[in-house]
Amino acid sequence: MNQLLKDLQHKVNQKTKPLGALGRLENLAIQIGMLQNTLNPSLNFPHILIFAADHGLAKSGVSPYPQEVTAQMVLNFVRGGAAINVFAKQNNIALTIVDAGVNFDFDNSLPILHEKIAKGTKNSLEEPAMSLEQCEKAFEKGKELIKQLHEKKCNVVGFGEMGIGNSSAAALLLSHYGKLPIEACVGRGTGLDDEGLKKKSEILYQVQQKHKQTLAKTDNPLEIVATLGGFEMVMMAGAMWQASELNMLVMIDGFIATSALLVAKSIKNNITESCVFCHQSEEQGHQKMLDLLQAKPLLNVGMRLGEGTGVAVAYPLIVSAVNFLNEMASFEQAGVSEKND
Amino acid sequence: MNQLLKDLQHKVNQKTKPLGALGRLENLAIQIGMLQNTLNPSLNFPHILIFAADHGLAKSGVSPYPQEVTAQMVLNFVRGGAAINVFAKQNNIALTIVDAGVNFDFDNSLPILHEKIAKGTKNSLEEPAMSLEQCEKAFEKGKELIKQLHEKKCNVVGFGEMGIGNSSAAALLLSHYGKLPIEACVGRGTGLDDEGLKKKSEILYQVQQKHKQTLAKTDNPLEIVATLGGFEMVMMAGAMWQASELNMLVMIDGFIATSALLVAKSIKNNITESCVFCHQSEEQGHQKMLDLLQAKPLLNVGMRLGEGTGVAVAYPLIVSAVNFLNEMASFEQAGVSEKND
Repeated sequence: MNQLLKDLQHKVNQKTKPLGALGRLENLAIQIGMLQNTLNPSLNFPHILIFAADHGLAKSGVSPYPQEVTAQMVLNFVRGGAAINVFAKQNNIALTIVDAGVNFDFDNSLPILHEKIAKGTKNSLEEPAMSLEQCEKAFEKGKELIKQLHEKKCNVVGFGEMGIGNSSAAALLLSHYGKLPIEACVGRGTGLDDEGLKKKSEILYQVQQKHKQTLAKTDNPLEIVATLGGFEMVMMAGAMWQASELNMLVMIDGFIATSALLVAKSIKNNITESCVFCHQSEEQGHQKMLDLLQAKPLLNVGMRLGEGTGVAVAYPLIVSAVNFLNEMASFEQAGVSEKND
Repeated sequence: MNQLLKDLQHKVNQKTKPLGALGRLENLAIQIGMLQNTLNPSLNFPHILIFAADHGLAKSGVSPYPQEVTAQMVLNFVRGGAAINVFAKQNNIALTIVDAGVNFDFDNSLPILHEKIAKGTKNSLEEPAMSLEQCEKAFEKGKELIKQLHEKKCNVVGFGEMGIGNSSAAALLLSHYGKLPIEACVGRGTGLDDEGLKKKSEILYQVQQKHKQTLAKTDNPLEIVATLGGFEMVMMAGAMWQASELNMLVMIDGFIATSALLVAKSIKNNITESCVFCHQSEEQGHQKMLDLLQAKPLLNVGMRLGEGTGVAVAYPLIVSAVNFLNEMASFEQAGVSEKND
């Protein structure tokens, strides 16, 4: 057994509590210690990056909301009115909004990172969502943004997203990586009714048929996500990859963010060692993604909003894990008797 | 439908998110709004009371820890070294430690509320754990402590406990209120092995036989808990009752705290309207208590420590519920398009 792992386990076991009594917080503390290579980990400058982009597929009626909502919600983020603003502020998490490809011209003066690859993807019913060149550019941009955060001493980062239509792209990625029929991957997204759900499933099946040959002959992860995905997802995947390379703690949100992780994991298989799964989404496909990743999220409170909200509300639990490891007294320090053998 | 309930639901639905997308945080926001009779609830001076007491039954070998640990852990609380100290500090929750009946003479100068009923209960294998008079005194004291907090404008209170042997008393209460065989109610507590678990079950069965007649002929909740329970549990039940009477939000922790709620509920049936179930304990009987109460806790992260730790780590989620209701923009305020019909 690795010596640090042994020492971390010992440190946890010597705290004034029955063995294992802090449950998953104990595993989390050990994971973070291992990631930071220390018995005394710390969470510095926590950050959530929200990537926003539009989807050509949204024009085919896969979402009950109009595409304009992506840009409107970005402006809501900027003004501080969205759920993610409220939760990030509450838990002292910095928020950066990245325009990865929204179909709207934001004023340059707005506090947004203007990294638009294009004004939304193409409609994947008709052609690949983006070119391989655009995809590589988005992936690299994600990496670059993380390097900048890392230089500012941030060591814990979560990811949120906004993009009308992106639960369709995520379902397509799940179907591809999980080798699952599309009906098993499709969900209600922002709130489709039964009829809308059926239509979404049919449309996504057509998308798969359209790109069947391309997908069958490639194992280039970027070509796969270029065909089916969105700019926000590719940029997020690049960011996740880079954060893991830099041993940052990567906080994973719901269905869309986890689809980006599927992409990143197909490039870096051990990336999950860096990840905390924060929240189980109500979107039905999320459970299947988590099964693929053998992951169990910290929270399951019926949320399905995206934006990184699952990360933001779970973050205090991650802080608790680090805090108990650093701050609790040991049996010896406290003069508390240990268990009888 | 009650007008305030309707208005709260409308306020939640107008926030910039898909309908229902914040899951249980939405129910929680509405519950708190109803409890405080307002569209704009607030959480003021959050507090956790930890009740500590010893159990005569502990001398029969129902716990792997010696009885001295109760007092030692109280001193650990006072010095700030326990898990509950770390988590309460992290989440800005005030902590008060109440000696409800620890078998130790604490120095009067310590920051403890000295409300000792006796130096531990009697061994319920031999006689009732306490007299009815002691039980009434403990219940009244719990009420009094809450009135004092309420006068200081606290409107949200959680309960923790410490008492070697108290998972046995809690199992006895569960068995009584749930009409369940004792084996279905007994768990490993602080960490019994298989043999210890079997022994605990046998001892508790003997306790039940001892008091069978008394329990069969009474429906006085205080007589039941006087026979089987502990001082910390009775004081907690009184405190829960009073907090609910004052429309305070009552945050419920794990197995022991929920056993106290069973007592309080047998006196005030609608008390659960005031309660947030914070954490699902790993102690097996807790699920059965939650089933009786038709309750689903916010968190399930494998903890089984008591002390109010489940309350403390869940509290930020409760804050999130209130914050989104108060701070998020509505579709109209944010200029975001609503769902297509």
